[in-house]
Amino acid sequence: MRYAILGSGAVGGLYGGRLAQAGHDVHFLLHSDYDQVAERGLRIDSVRGDFVVTAPNIYRDAADMPPCDVVIVALKSTNNHLLAGLLPQLIGEHGVVLSLQNGLDVEAAAIAAAPGHGVLGGCCFLCSNKVGPGHIRHLDYGRIVFGLYQEGAEGTDWTLERGEQILADMVGAGIDAQWTDDLAAARWRKLMWNIPFNGLSVVLDAATDEIMASPAARSLAETMIQEVFQGAASCGVSIDESAIATTMKHTETMVPYDSSMRLDFLHGRAMEVDAIFGSPLRAVTQELSRKRKTGENSVHPMPSVAMLHQQLQFLDSRPRQTSNPAS
Amino acid sequence: MRYAILGSGAVGGLYGGRLAQAGHDVHFLLHSDYDQVAERGLRIDSVRGDFVVTAPNIYRDAADMPPCDVVIVALKSTNNHLLAGLLPQLIGEHGVVLSLQNGLDVEAAAIAAAPGHGVLGGCCFLCSNKVGPGHIRHLDYGRIVFGLYQEGAEGTDWTLERGEQILADMVGAGIDAQWTDDLAAARWRKLMWNIPFNGLSVVLDAATDEIMASPAARSLAETMIQEVFQGAASCGVSIDESAIATTMKHTETMVPYDSSMRLDFLHGRAMEVDAIFGSPLRAVTQELSRKRKTGENSVHPMPSVAMLHQQLQFLDSRPRQTSNPAS
Repeated sequence: MRYAILGSGAVGGLYGGRLAQAGHDVHFLLHSDYDQVAERGLRIDSVRGDFVVTAPNIYRDAADMPPCDVVIVALKSTNNHLLAGLLPQLIGEHGVVLSLQNGLDVEAAAIAAAPGHGVLGGCCFLCSNKVGPGHIRHLDYGRIVFGLYQEGAEGTDWTLERGEQILADMVGAGIDAQWTDDLAAARWRKLMWNIPFNGLSVVLDAATDEIMASPAARSLAETMIQEVFQGAASCGVSIDESAIATTMKHTETMVPYDSSMRLDFLHGRAMEVDAIFGSPLRAVTQELSRKRKTGENSVHPMPSVAMLHQQLQFLDSRPRQTSNPAS
Repeated sequence: MRYAILGSGAVGGLYGGRLAQAGHDVHFLLHSDYDQVAERGLRIDSVRGDFVVTAPNIYRDAADMPPCDVVIVALKSTNNHLLAGLLPQLIGEHGVVLSLQNGLDVEAAAIAAAPGHGVLGGCCFLCSNKVGPGHIRHLDYGRIVFGLYQEGAEGTDWTLERGEQILADMVGAGIDAQWTDDLAAARWRKLMWNIPFNGLSVVLDAATDEIMASPAARSLAETMIQEVFQGAASCGVSIDESAIATTMKHTETMVPYDSSMRLDFLHGRAMEVDAIFGSPLRAVTQELSRKRKTGENSVHPMPSVAMLHQQLQFLDSRPRQTSNPAS
């Protein structure tokens, strides 16, 4: 299968790089990093072993890329408006999109941009940052959990087949990839981390270790994890309750980590506020109003998450200085 | 009557200065500002007219001060542990304490430090900052509302008499002072401003005008004002509901203002997190558990306020750089 990688940052650079290193036919669309990658290749410093993809297939323009069977979308979701211009140029016959973005329902943009194509979504549980042009630093963890975004949509059969092939390619390339029949559960499971730790890291200007070391901030994070857990349940998504404690424990034992949202904030870039906060809050609110109509009233409206969302909206919308204008 | 002023900042400097300028017998305990005030006097730039108290009675040590009839406590409440050492040296026979501090139950420290003396509390509704040693800038508003802290305590009769005298002295000195028979209502009324705008100004790193200009931050502020209003009600404190809209409107029309808590944060000083957040949250929680015991369950637990409290506890407890080490 031929892969296109849109977004060669912490996620696309790492997983695209692993697929390319394993000998797969991988094509990277690059923007600001093109010259450096052309000169020095794609460099991955990883806890699982460092490597450099010395001569990757790279492009400045999607129009120059060959039709691909799998388009991995690893752009920031704030750039999803670009997909309408990119996907039709890239995606081959029976090609599928695999969105590895943070948030909920981030696949909707791909559905709209590539009608008739299958869309898969995946969650990446890892600590990884882009530390320079074409230079990824993978610090901890690394699992991808992916599955079908729309059950029963047209082309589900061959989309599932593509999913199996992707899984085989990834596992063969040494990626800790897993298929899931319940993408929504994986998305909400990941939100249990992203919502508290992306959000609080920005508002409190703190890395994960500082949050976990403070009784007040730690308790706040746990409250939010519980709210997200309840929010998922109210949307009919079932997650094992042990995930609450596991999320806290994993964060405690992980390397001190600057979340992607914090790095975006510090570097003056748009933050994924709507995908990570707005979208799940809307999902829960919709369930809330639906159930109220039918006489039920058991939905938790995630009050702390809603407040953090408003704080982030404020911080995201105002002009801010970049601490590192070069990034 | 002879007045002692503890804390000659935005509040003590302004009101103590006005009393001194009007010819009252006022004695200021100074610390870091002593030399500058000795040399240049106490300077007040005020929207109600600038003035300088050219030769105020100033002291480095409470032991050198004469016994006073009224001790105005305008220290930051984070310094209330100092009162046990100060008040016994200062307070004369039938002397009273008037605490002009932010927060709830800040008078408790004076009660403990000066047993047998009357304690009054007051809320200052004003925009005022200390901008340099012995130099106050009064920007907007200026009302003091004060009253008895402990109804029915020993000595209530002469404490009320002192209160009347203080009121007459203040009004005569051009201060917009008002007596209240319901100090708790005044305290909670002020918390309706302090809780959202002190807290959010720190966490969002924003002055009041920025908060009011953002739909997200503005909505969050209003949510918290409503929570404080409900919190007061659950503690049996009745405030007219129009105060919610009035608080928003006053903030909208006031000068762009850095709250005292924001200035403390920016200058690396301890913030009044416990007096402004911890104390009212405890009061509401206590009412909540009390009422649950008796079968009622109508108390609003102020969830947004509790979350902002935790964020501030985090920010207050960690080491921080000062943006202006000179202040």
